[in-house]
Parts: sequence; structure tokens; C-alpha cells
Amino acid sequence: MPAAPAVEPGAILPVAVDAMGGDKAPGEIVAGARRAADEGVEVVLVGPPELIGDPLGLPVVACTEVIEMHEDAGQAVRRKKDSSLVRSAELVRDGKASAMVSAGNTGATMASALLRMGRLRGVARPCIATPLPRLGREPAVLVDAGANAECTSAMLVQFAQMGAAYAAARYGIADPSVALLSIGEEPSKGTPLVKEAHAALAGAAGLRFLGNVEGRDLLPSPADVVVTDGFTGNVTLKVLEGSLRFIVETLFSVFGTDASTMAASEALLPHLLPVAAELDPENTGGAMLLGVDGVCVISHGSSSATAVRNAVRVADELVVAGLVGRLADAVAGA
Amino acid sequence: MPAAPAVEPGAILPVAVDAMGGDKAPGEIVAGARRAADEGVEVVLVGPPELIGDPLGLPVVACTEVIEMHEDAGQAVRRKKDSSLVRSAELVRDGKASAMVSAGNTGATMASALLRMGRLRGVARPCIATPLPRLGREPAVLVDAGANAECTSAMLVQFAQMGAAYAAARYGIADPSVALLSIGEEPSKGTPLVKEAHAALAGAAGLRFLGNVEGRDLLPSPADVVVTDGFTGNVTLKVLEGSLRFIVETLFSVFGTDASTMAASEALLPHLLPVAAELDPENTGGAMLLGVDGVCVISHGSSSATAVRNAVRVADELVVAGLVGRLADAVAGA
Repeated sequence: MPAAPAVEPGAILPVAVDAMGGDKAPGEIVAGARRAADEGVEVVLVGPPELIGDPLGLPVVACTEVIEMHEDAGQAVRRKKDSSLVRSAELVRDGKASAMVSAGNTGATMASALLRMGRLRGVARPCIATPLPRLGREPAVLVDAGANAECTSAMLVQFAQMGAAYAAARYGIADPSVALLSIGEEPSKGTPLVKEAHAALAGAAGLRFLGNVEGRDLLPSPADVVVTDGFTGNVTLKVLEGSLRFIVETLFSVFGTDASTMAASEALLPHLLPVAAELDPENTGGAMLLGVDGVCVISHGSSSATAVRNAVRVADELVVAGLVGRLADAVAGA
Repeated sequence: MPAAPAVEPGAILPVAVDAMGGDKAPGEIVAGARRAADEGVEVVLVGPPELIGDPLGLPVVACTEVIEMHEDAGQAVRRKKDSSLVRSAELVRDGKASAMVSAGNTGATMASALLRMGRLRGVARPCIATPLPRLGREPAVLVDAGANAECTSAMLVQFAQMGAAYAAARYGIADPSVALLSIGEEPSKGTPLVKEAHAALAGAAGLRFLGNVEGRDLLPSPADVVVTDGFTGNVTLKVLEGSLRFIVETLFSVFGTDASTMAASEALLPHLLPVAAELDPENTGGAMLLGVDGVCVISHGSSSATAVRNAVRVADELVVAGLVGRLADAVAGA
């Protein structure tokens, strides 16, 4: 086992990239990290050197274990203390990295970040923020996209506060508006949790609460932040992903019908590709874990080099933007 | 007030159509009912004659009240005992209509059907079944699409049983497969309700349970029936609706860019329109309330004459197919 190249003390802190996380690890992960480094972001790879192979000249923090995509998150993080995920989170905790990025096991990424970085003071539970595309302008933010299957209304209020701070830090949205996902616009609609959360959000100081939105309002979302529990949020996100993929596949199948449709597709593709690019999760920079004491980007499991490069850049930008401090202020009502 | 033309005793029972339900009532509703009648289905309109206007030759059961789209469902049904919705449900209860169809207030439609027709024996709570399109083959069925924001696992098992019986009666699917909507394939994923429902569905006799599906798997669904609580189901359905509408609008905006894209759209539209037709809620015949003692079709609030015509035909077909008896058998484990 070669010794890990040390991260130099006093240098600009690098973004720690879990080289072994994701369906296309390590190849696409390392390539994406390299691209971000070429564009000026300090990066350190984390993983077993013999599995990483050629690090393309990037520094490597060596470890001996890897958490697989489908392992039980809690168990894996407890048992695999020398895994690339746990070590990435430790680098942030120990002031040796500015942020972490992983396209690996989402549950294990959350657990690593939570256990090693810890929660921000006053935060009950971290949540996952994902972008909801709004063509031609900054995306809206969906919280919680899957960190907490069970929520209280107090948690939803914190998700709203953190989501708004994130929308401001990430997309430069001034005084972001917030809506609650429900099954009708009336405050009386929804589960007991949703009704209670509606009242709590309406009464929360510092939140510009617009009321409820429905599932059909998400593309494009009228509110800058859409709040829901992590079960509904995860289902919603995946329904959006699945329906967009379904339509794209259907469209390409129509394009290939005959010579005239193929010619037609040539005229349309230059106009459709920019739209597709805006909708593609590869280009959004990934989901963000909000509420831990550090920047943690959770990339899609299928991330290519482009997605990893974008995620690393976003992580770096959010460190510079002081995201963690802004989240702490938002939750404290500062 | 003119006397209501009586429905003749001994005649084939008509489908009762709430002439005043929906955004486009009564014009499109009456026109759609007329089309179904022209195609051989017995139809009776229900509503205040002075509001219906010209019934296009269809018989009218007169009443004096209308429940508006945004009234509180419970209150409205209790107070407006002579409303078109309540009277439609009574016609079914009293053996004067075979089925009811409404594009009006969904909550009030459910409440009218439940209070006047009553629950099927053994059914804890009725649920709403909606089609999930699968291009080129019969749709899958989503239950519950919004009747019950709060559910127990025992309710989800009944929804699965009724959903399977409906998939068989409506689409001719033999031995329909069932899946549970969750946020991961593993039985350990999801809320406590979902985990409990997974175990209950796996242990239920007579159900071909495939396990969990995720939101991204719904188009096309690998299972013939997808079970979830009414909150998640309603959000899911509306997210699907919203994302498909978003893509169609985006596509049409691209088509209109310039002369070459407009020419291209002319080549593609003949291929795209059949797909769009298969995805259009107007063509699916509406949602079905399962678990009440009668056939009750809940059409989309925006239903046009085509949607109403389809809904009436589906209602008639399901009466002929003996849907209610099949649902009762499914819940009884017969």
C-alpha cells in the first residue's frame, strides 16, 4: 500500500471526491475531478489507490475500503471506518478538505456526513435539496428530496429555512419564496402533517410563504423553494426524472421512424438539445445535503465525468459563498 | 320548475351524468353524454333544467342545487341534498341508474357516492383508481390516486385487491401483478406505513406482489397495479400530468421557432399525435371510485365532451362487466 500524498497544511483546501462512489466509478469520477482541477478547483481523490488506478495526476488520500451502492447505509458506515465515503467526511471535519462530493450510496453519504461532520447547531435533521428546472431562469429547490422518510412540521419549517438560504447562496435568488407540496391549494388539504406544516410555515418569521402547491405546478415551480417530507420528495423527484426520460425516449423513437422524420429531427435537435441540457441531472451539479457542518454534494449514482466536474465546481462555489454559515443563520432566525 | 321526465321502470338502466360537474359544464358535459347516447349507451342527465339549457334530447332528472368545484365536500353533500351530485348517487342506489359519472368536485363526488350508495361489504375505505399509460398496451392502474390522504397497511392491501380486480375487469389483464410505490426496491425502504404494507402485501393470499417500485419506474409501470396512499398517489398523478404538459408545451414552442422547425413539425406530428392521444387524460375514461356499491366514474375537472363520452362508455362497460361484484369478491378473497 503506497503512502497517501499528504494535503499540504496552509494550502487552499481541496474538495474531497469519493473516487469509488457511483455506477461509473472510478473512471468517470476521476476524469470529472481532473476536469474540475484543470479549471482551477483544488481536488483530492479519496479511495484505495489500487482500485482507483491512474489518478490522472491528482493527489490521493488512500483508504482501504469501499461502501457499495446497495449496502445498508447505517451498518456500512459503522463497519467500514476506512471507506472512501467515511474518510471523505473526516477530511472535511478535520479541516483538510473544504467540501465532499460523492456519487455513491446516498444513504451512506448522508450517514458519513452526519456522523463525521455533525449537524449544524439547532438543526433537527439534515435534508436533501435538489433543483427543479425552470427553463431560462434559475431552478427552484425541492427539499427534502429523500433524507427523511418521516418528518415533523418543525422539521419542514427548518427545511424551508435552509432551502431558502440555499436558493439564495446557490442561485442568487433574493428573498426566495416558499411553498408546501400538497394535494390542493386550500390549507385544509393533505395529511395531518401537511396541514400542521402549512400553519407552521405561515407563522414562521423570515419565510416568504406562498401557501400550497400541487404536483402539477412543479414544472416550472411558482415558488423558489418547494417543501415536503423526504418520502414524498423522493417519489416526486423520481417521477419527474422517469417521465422526462420516458418522453425523451419516445421522441427519439419517433425521430427514427423514417427518412422524413429523421430529416425533421435534424432541424429540431439544435433547438431541443439546449432544453434537454437544462433538464439533464448531469448538468445541475447534484443534490446538496443541507444541515451538516460542511458542504456535501450528493451526485446521481449514474454520474458521468461531466456531472462530477459540475458537482465539484458547485461544492467549491458554495464553500466560497459561505453556505454553511448562511444555513446556520437561517435556522437560528438571524 | 318542469317535472322531471321519469326513467321508465323495466328499461335498460341509464348512466346518470352530473350535467353540472366540471369546468366546462353544462355545455361539454351534455354534448359528451349525447355522443355516448348516439353510440348506444342509455344516459340520463341530472341537474337543474334551467341551468342545463338544451338537453339535446336526453332525459333529465331535475334537481335544484349544484355543488361548486371548490366547496368543502363534506359540508356541501350534507347541505345540498337536492344537488346534481347527490341525486346522481341516489339514482344508482335506488336502481334507477346503472352508474354515475361526474367531472365535478372530486371530494363531493366521493362523499355523495359513499353516503348514498354505501361501501361494499368488507371494504374499509373506497379508493380512486387512475390509469398509468403504457404505450401500445393496456395501461397500469394507480391506487389510491387521492381518496384517502391517511392510510393503514390493511387499507393498502384492499386497494391492491380492488386495483387488481379493476385491472382485470377494465383492461382484461389476467392475474394482474401488483407493486408498492416506495423510495427504494428494498423492503426496508420507506415510511413505517410502506414497510408494514410491503410485508402485508407479500403475505396477502391471491395477490401477485412483485415488491416495491420507485417513482422513476411508473412510465411504463412494470406492475399492472401500483399501490400507494392517497396523498402520495395524488402528488404522483399530478406530477406526471404536470411534467407531460410541460414537455408538450416546450415541444410546441420549439416547433414554432422558424420556418424550418415548422416544416419539421409537420413531418413529426402524424407520429406524435397518436402518442399524445394515448397520454391524454381526455381519452382514458376518467378515474374510478372503487369500493362503493355502484359504478362511479370521476372525470377530470377540465373534461371536454370527448372525455365525458369516454367516461360514460367506460361506466357502461364496467356495469356490463360486473365490476362491483368482482370488487366485492376480491376483497372477500373469493
